[in-house]
Amino acid sequence: MYRDKIRVLDCTIRDGGLINNHQFDQRFVREVYKAISASGVDYMEMGYKNSKKLFSSKEYGLWKFCEDDEIHKIIDGVESRTKISVMVDIGRVNMEDIKPKAESPVDMMRVASYVKDIDKAIHMVNDFAEMGYETTINIMAISRDQGPELDEALHQIENESKVNVVYIVDSFGALYQETVEHLVKKARSILKTREVGFHGHNHQQLAFGNTIEAIIHDANYLDGTVYGIGRAAGNCPLELLIGFLKNPKFDIRPILDLISKEFISLRKKIEWGYIIPYAISGMMNEHPKAAMALRKSEKKENYREFYESLTIVE
Amino acid sequence: MYRDKIRVLDCTIRDGGLINNHQFDQRFVREVYKAISASGVDYMEMGYKNSKKLFSSKEYGLWKFCEDDEIHKIIDGVESRTKISVMVDIGRVNMEDIKPKAESPVDMMRVASYVKDIDKAIHMVNDFAEMGYETTINIMAISRDQGPELDEALHQIENESKVNVVYIVDSFGALYQETVEHLVKKARSILKTREVGFHGHNHQQLAFGNTIEAIIHDANYLDGTVYGIGRAAGNCPLELLIGFLKNPKFDIRPILDLISKEFISLRKKIEWGYIIPYAISGMMNEHPKAAMALRKSEKKENYREFYESLTIVE
Repeated sequence: MYRDKIRVLDCTIRDGGLINNHQFDQRFVREVYKAISASGVDYMEMGYKNSKKLFSSKEYGLWKFCEDDEIHKIIDGVESRTKISVMVDIGRVNMEDIKPKAESPVDMMRVASYVKDIDKAIHMVNDFAEMGYETTINIMAISRDQGPELDEALHQIENESKVNVVYIVDSFGALYQETVEHLVKKARSILKTREVGFHGHNHQQLAFGNTIEAIIHDANYLDGTVYGIGRAAGNCPLELLIGFLKNPKFDIRPILDLISKEFISLRKKIEWGYIIPYAISGMMNEHPKAAMALRKSEKKENYREFYESLTIVE
Repeated sequence: MYRDKIRVLDCTIRDGGLINNHQFDQRFVREVYKAISASGVDYMEMGYKNSKKLFSSKEYGLWKFCEDDEIHKIIDGVESRTKISVMVDIGRVNMEDIKPKAESPVDMMRVASYVKDIDKAIHMVNDFAEMGYETTINIMAISRDQGPELDEALHQIENESKVNVVYIVDSFGALYQETVEHLVKKARSILKTREVGFHGHNHQQLAFGNTIEAIIHDANYLDGTVYGIGRAAGNCPLELLIGFLKNPKFDIRPILDLISKEFISLRKKIEWGYIIPYAISGMMNEHPKAAMALRKSEKKENYREFYESLTIVE
């Protein structure tokens, strides 16, 4: 599946950080960066650009804030063509913290937005674009927001924003491939001058299959994470995506080494992957937060009760 | 996704038995049968009908042989509409062991065949059909056998056999959904008077996505296993398939209970699921046997060396 315009973005540290409050240590993040660079992956996302006025740096690790100095400590001295991205949540960033692109190691700003917040997202990406950054808008929870508001938001993005890429984000792991096809085609038809991306979640083991579906219908920006790490069930495994794309610019072997050396032991310490309450959340098109709470309780394997709590409304 | 003609077959005990030499005990198999029956799944496959002259009953458990008496011990006294199937390998069955359907608890005989053995498979299914059984031919390793021999085999089946269903079997977990679409459409176009089925393997986390793809293109017989158990990476998780189909005749809850009570602990004793050497086998369109041997060795997590052993031919 070779297509020159395809770009792969690794969000291991960013989405994985949602499991452990972004507390990956420098050594680990540098190992990931070295492997991602050696594998030829186009972008690596380090975390969120949140304001330290809103979140405690005692409670959260470095990658909740992604300060330029900390990114330099990871990337300096490593031979790499991989660009750096960070994610921005609406209302959680202090724009004064952001330097112009020319003074920053960050290449791309990705703004995560619900459909209802698209005005704010457009405002932010236009500011970032003015500062010289590549930009994306990642439309979260799109499985819940497929009505006419979505069409309107896409038209607004096309007409009013300077964004480069618009991502369809299956936050709840609820999409099947027919809906992925529908959404990618819709986005492509409205966003005539932008690229379309896809970010899957793996609640129903469909993150990779849905990513392939998005590729078939001409989404060119694709997210993955090493060994599928990420919140709840995790994301599209980067190693599977690289294996599928068969683009000679990619080398899967540094990622295989990274899994051998770092991720098998990490998986024993923090939990992600195919876990029944997350699968149930996906089937029900629900945010995984109830399932995440269940997994921290004594009822973690009581699937029937959890299923019924989501289905039987009295 | 409601379609009246869809039939779901659970092959938990049969494909799962490939991990442990078919040594599930009676209590466990009966618990599975009770849950499958309560969930409304159409068929449950108990194992293989192999000859005791060819395989040792010391080395292999009951479900390598599936004697009628042993099946009765599982199903008698349980209220159920679930039909019973067994799988037959060409050249490994003693036809004299098979009683007519009227005297047997088995409803369906599934003949596993490579394309090259299709003559023998047709001969066998015709014998089974004469004895009153429903029959299927499961075309194994189809990802390696997509040439004109496959078309010829399908025409032969349509013209010469009494088989009810022909399954596309992705033995190596190598198919992506575009190929599933191609194969199901081809089978449907040639097998005008038969049903088409799909049996996925999960090496690349695509068993469920590929099963949905097969459904979209009108495959009506679908295999799954509880919690995805099965050889190597396992199969399409039955609970996900039931969740997708949304047919009111199915109830997912007995399967959720079964996973809680039996499969979480079982998974700690025997291995299946997303494991990198199996993913590599799938990418390479290789039988998982080399990966299965690796997992029993000290090099079980040495993925790079395994990958290179499959790719670099000197």
